[in-house]
Amino acid sequence: MVTAHAGDADAGAVGRASVDLLGVLAYGELSAFDRLAEDARTAPTLSGRAALSVMAAAEIGHFRLLEAHLSGLGVPIEHAMAPFVAPLDFYHASTAPRSWLESLVKAYVGDGLAADFYREVAGWLPGSTGELVQRVLADTGHSAFAEREVRAACAASRQVRDRLALWGRRLLGEAVTQAQRIVAERDELADFIVSGAADLTGIAALLRRLQSNHGKRMVKLGLS
Amino acid sequence: MVTAHAGDADAGAVGRASVDLLGVLAYGELSAFDRLAEDARTAPTLSGRAALSVMAAAEIGHFRLLEAHLSGLGVPIEHAMAPFVAPLDFYHASTAPRSWLESLVKAYVGDGLAADFYREVAGWLPGSTGELVQRVLADTGHSAFAEREVRAACAASRQVRDRLALWGRRLLGEAVTQAQRIVAERDELADFIVSGAADLTGIAALLRRLQSNHGKRMVKLGLS
Repeated sequence: MVTAHAGDADAGAVGRASVDLLGVLAYGELSAFDRLAEDARTAPTLSGRAALSVMAAAEIGHFRLLEAHLSGLGVPIEHAMAPFVAPLDFYHASTAPRSWLESLVKAYVGDGLAADFYREVAGWLPGSTGELVQRVLADTGHSAFAEREVRAACAASRQVRDRLALWGRRLLGEAVTQAQRIVAERDELADFIVSGAADLTGIAALLRRLQSNHGKRMVKLGLS
Repeated sequence: MVTAHAGDADAGAVGRASVDLLGVLAYGELSAFDRLAEDARTAPTLSGRAALSVMAAAEIGHFRLLEAHLSGLGVPIEHAMAPFVAPLDFYHASTAPRSWLESLVKAYVGDGLAADFYREVAGWLPGSTGELVQRVLADTGHSAFAEREVRAACAASRQVRDRLALWGRRLLGEAVTQAQRIVAERDELADFIVSGAADLTGIAALLRRLQSNHGKRMVKLGLS
């Protein structure tokens, strides 16, 4: 266990931006775990509850990988996560699902968006950290259940489909808004992302790719 | 996916009592996951929240082993769990922690009691099922955190210690009461346990061993 001071010094050495990215990813996993576990309680069937609980537990598997990696860098995971607790909690509070289907769409869309974003930046990170991020992402994929359930519900009701399509669009908007707020408050992170994407045109292209992949996910859910 | 009818037929072949034990263990894991995830939210620190979330996720790891095993026996896990949802939910509702320390004691004591019970019966189960139960139990052990936190709180306040000692005793009582209710409603399960323990004297000895191990856990928590 290092002190906050020693942690800060090491964080400087490995690049504050990498630690920020690992920190926001880690708190993303921990808060997603919390929300998925809560949403699992509203499942209409025991199978649904088990499926969402398994998705929640997978987040903790990722969390532990990040914890071990950050610890190797001399940074306690709590320190790395701390700046991102408020913005991510705000994201979740402002996108609290009002139904089981909204929960499934949020789990699926949120997981996918986060994975896309980290896949984009993994290549810009120092060797072992970039590899870790790839590994954390590669392990996702408990999404077949969500696809099946949401598609079935959309096929059965056009009204359900339209509402969930709006919900999916809103989730993307809220996620992008929160991500921009986070970056605006972290200078090193902003510099890292702009230089990684080459320039502001690169950032615009990155956002378009995220939107395009989001659109593909909506199609897979039957929400096109 | 087999139907309820096919599942029941296969369950008959492998012994209804084994399936019952796997079912109650599985729902024990799923409901413990749910409660630990809820309790994690009340953690006073981010480290505490992460520690309890990791304990919750470990339950799902066990759940998935049981799901795969039951599926190999031709029994959907939902069918095996169904009879035990109400009694286990009742146990959790009647032992809802009112504080973070009560949550930690419950997680620790509940995990330990369940492990002790299944260790007793694992030897009575058919080969591969007994081995699976041993494997599920061997994987526990995220308990150092709970021991450390509870011991520190007890060392700091005698009142806290006395209240938690009462809480620990109550948890044992509620668990034994619920277990007896479950067995009373399942004839095959009752026969299996009585014949496994040789006779009613064997049952009394088993209960004494559970109580004795519970006492050792209380000592480890500083609650002797």
